[in-house]
Amino acid sequence: MTTADNPNLFGVILAGGSGTRFWPLSRSQYPKQVLRLLGSESLLQATIARLLPRIPLSRLAVVSNTAQADVIHMDLYHQGWEDIQLWLEPRGRNTAAAVGLAAMLMGAEAEAQIMAVFPADHFIRDQASLLRALDQGAEMAQKGYLVTFGITPTRPDTGYGYIKAGKPLDGAGFGLHAEKFLEKPELARAKAFIQEGGYYWNSGIFMFRRDVFLSALARYLPELFSGLAKLGQGNPAVSLEEVYQEIPSISIDYGVMEKAANVAVLPVDMGWSDVGTWGALYELFPKDDHGNVVLGQKSLDLHSRNSLIFSQNRLVATIGLEDTIVVDTPDASLVCHRERVQEVKDLVEELTRQSMVESVQHPTVERPWGRYTVMDAGPGYQVKQIVVDPGKRLSYQWHHHRAEHWVVVQGTALVTIGTETREVATNESVFVPMKSPHRLENPGTDPVRIIEVQTGSYLGEDDIVRLDDDFWRLSETNITSHN
Amino acid sequence: MTTADNPNLFGVILAGGSGTRFWPLSRSQYPKQVLRLLGSESLLQATIARLLPRIPLSRLAVVSNTAQADVIHMDLYHQGWEDIQLWLEPRGRNTAAAVGLAAMLMGAEAEAQIMAVFPADHFIRDQASLLRALDQGAEMAQKGYLVTFGITPTRPDTGYGYIKAGKPLDGAGFGLHAEKFLEKPELARAKAFIQEGGYYWNSGIFMFRRDVFLSALARYLPELFSGLAKLGQGNPAVSLEEVYQEIPSISIDYGVMEKAANVAVLPVDMGWSDVGTWGALYELFPKDDHGNVVLGQKSLDLHSRNSLIFSQNRLVATIGLEDTIVVDTPDASLVCHRERVQEVKDLVEELTRQSMVESVQHPTVERPWGRYTVMDAGPGYQVKQIVVDPGKRLSYQWHHHRAEHWVVVQGTALVTIGTETREVATNESVFVPMKSPHRLENPGTDPVRIIEVQTGSYLGEDDIVRLDDDFWRLSETNITSHN
Repeated sequence: MTTADNPNLFGVILAGGSGTRFWPLSRSQYPKQVLRLLGSESLLQATIARLLPRIPLSRLAVVSNTAQADVIHMDLYHQGWEDIQLWLEPRGRNTAAAVGLAAMLMGAEAEAQIMAVFPADHFIRDQASLLRALDQGAEMAQKGYLVTFGITPTRPDTGYGYIKAGKPLDGAGFGLHAEKFLEKPELARAKAFIQEGGYYWNSGIFMFRRDVFLSALARYLPELFSGLAKLGQGNPAVSLEEVYQEIPSISIDYGVMEKAANVAVLPVDMGWSDVGTWGALYELFPKDDHGNVVLGQKSLDLHSRNSLIFSQNRLVATIGLEDTIVVDTPDASLVCHRERVQEVKDLVEELTRQSMVESVQHPTVERPWGRYTVMDAGPGYQVKQIVVDPGKRLSYQWHHHRAEHWVVVQGTALVTIGTETREVATNESVFVPMKSPHRLENPGTDPVRIIEVQTGSYLGEDDIVRLDDDFWRLSETNITSHN
Repeated sequence: MTTADNPNLFGVILAGGSGTRFWPLSRSQYPKQVLRLLGSESLLQATIARLLPRIPLSRLAVVSNTAQADVIHMDLYHQGWEDIQLWLEPRGRNTAAAVGLAAMLMGAEAEAQIMAVFPADHFIRDQASLLRALDQGAEMAQKGYLVTFGITPTRPDTGYGYIKAGKPLDGAGFGLHAEKFLEKPELARAKAFIQEGGYYWNSGIFMFRRDVFLSALARYLPELFSGLAKLGQGNPAVSLEEVYQEIPSISIDYGVMEKAANVAVLPVDMGWSDVGTWGALYELFPKDDHGNVVLGQKSLDLHSRNSLIFSQNRLVATIGLEDTIVVDTPDASLVCHRERVQEVKDLVEELTRQSMVESVQHPTVERPWGRYTVMDAGPGYQVKQIVVDPGKRLSYQWHHHRAEHWVVVQGTALVTIGTETREVATNESVFVPMKSPHRLENPGTDPVRIIEVQTGSYLGEDDIVRLDDDFWRLSETNITSHN
């Protein structure tokens, strides 16, 4: 595996998905791409890390949306990747708009002219093959092709779209003309694809020259193109919000790739999975003697087979299950037959329709300074456990509607109330009256843990006025706030 | 249904079982008999309530053991049944010892001479039939029979023992000689029993004259009899503890009923179930159109069939399950195939072997003054939500090893620290230093809710020195403490 930078490549990571199929681990405010499903890195972090040998952080952009800004920020921040561009759409408008926005914002003056577009939430086992494909794809893209990575199928999967490849491209030892894009097939048809050969899974990974892509966009999605083009003119009267109210929501596959004549497929075999469902995740893990995948610390099983059992921190006991997915989180659990994992999406739609908080966020929320966990909540009060990482501090802030009681249970905190600052040691408490500016800081080298009891008529997270902040949270979020 | 008291009857409720098959709802310190599985009453409460038309509280005794004393006390207290005798064994020694102890403690001078022995954790749908059986059983017992209730079988159940009945008793329109006690049969044998007729389920419900039972005990279990007889002699040198170290652990069925010649079976048909497993509970509930039983408030199902889904307060989502039991509690959940519910017992044994707290108690613990819930715990600290019922107060107490921070989040508490008493209103807090005597009281008419943060080197419930208590908790527990 070479580690030579390719200065002609610009990486675009599409990180705006919701990944509802991974509920209850994913929530609308904690989407699939930031889940650590396959190790200690999130899917987004792993996607970026795999590209770094060819594309450094300075030529990478992550496209997401304002609703997910905080959690994506955090995920990049945890790796020390504050330098990556984060481009936020006002709302998701599918992949054609996201890639189009990236093409506009990277600008014609960018040194790199070839866009390499990756979904943030896929898995690729074989990085060397990926890098080789990047090199080959760059060569094809340079010649003017809209290149799509076609995954050599290993089974007649009915969960993926297929690409039918045509003749080899002239003069290269790799790459084929793309003849046809095919929807997710029935099993019989998928089997026929495999038998016949020349069909590839549509990975959603693309490479093309910026100018070639924009030409295709102008031709096949003129409305989308002209909307986004207004941004490129540096016209301050046109906001992203206005543009996004007008442009159509369509995928880059339907909107561009299926229509264009200069589309090429690059067959790749790199241990790829879109990790689309709990069932797909089950497939990616080694099994025990009974075909089970057991993740997490606190579970006990008797006689189950071919099942996935995941427990975050509660005790989960299982007996005699077959082909079952059990996923347990602190506030919600899922028990699902392994052949019905696609329906998790329907379930989350129903939870959202019923406005259940379990579809929105977890009790534990990560913050750039540490994390908090909602332990208890009732009329007029809420209890949180707050952990402040060593050397970090929360913003200097006040609340309109709530008072806060803090009891330090680990470490020594530095607490400011109004203009007075003092140390508060373990087993000491302090009261923060309503409307008093205050700050909580950990000056030490070990975590500080406090129990916070909030009381008041309104306890929402949005009742916060930040007067000072060490992070990115003072100004309104916008497309360049992260730089 | 007549409601005539039968002054010759004395009710003995056997409430010493652990009911591990109902984990995670049952715990060793919250056993099956106090679960509200079938309505708003616990199984114990319902067992007593069904008998009251014939046997008033003053002629009822509950036999349990010291480990379960608190939770049984509480269960009786909640119904205002403090007058029921509570007889506590130092440890469970099976049913022969429990019934033998009851026979000794009720004494020869008791006006009632017929013991009616009921397990505390069964279900009987038809109270009128039960009362009729009590009348008939009393008549049989009076004649000197050891009477056992035989349930007319409705299916070839392999989970029950059977009794083969012989000839009718002379001169009565009901009651048969018991010919043989049979172990839980294989399915083929159970079917043969049903076809042949004259077989009954062994319910574990007995009636006999005290003197007849004691004679049988002396004859068939002489060691047990002579051990217990020492208690009857009012010898203060012999403690219950000493007696229970010696006596054998054997069931009344094996030890007495299977051996005695004067055993009679009274066939009864009263909608009885021993509610032995989650599967038995499933059978007792009406099903929806898909054969599901859904209990609790917060669950969402898509396309499951013939399953029991129980959720206490967390969100449980299920998709496409068949014949599955899902039981979710705040700290633990069980997912079990419906045909393997017997193995829950093995699971709990394993949890106990691993010393997991989830086999011992729930995060929420009922107290005579209200309840507390452990919300969070870590090294050196613990957070509880405490609810004090109107007009109630905790004991006046102090702790060797912990300090407590209290924040009132609902109502106004009356707090004593040392000798000083003051009101603490909602959104006010108070600190209880280590070793300071203190008391928490709710003088109002609505619940008081406080968040307690404990800090200290040892946070066990047994670090409590009670100086005064409104309940039964000052003296050491003993067999007459409840009177």
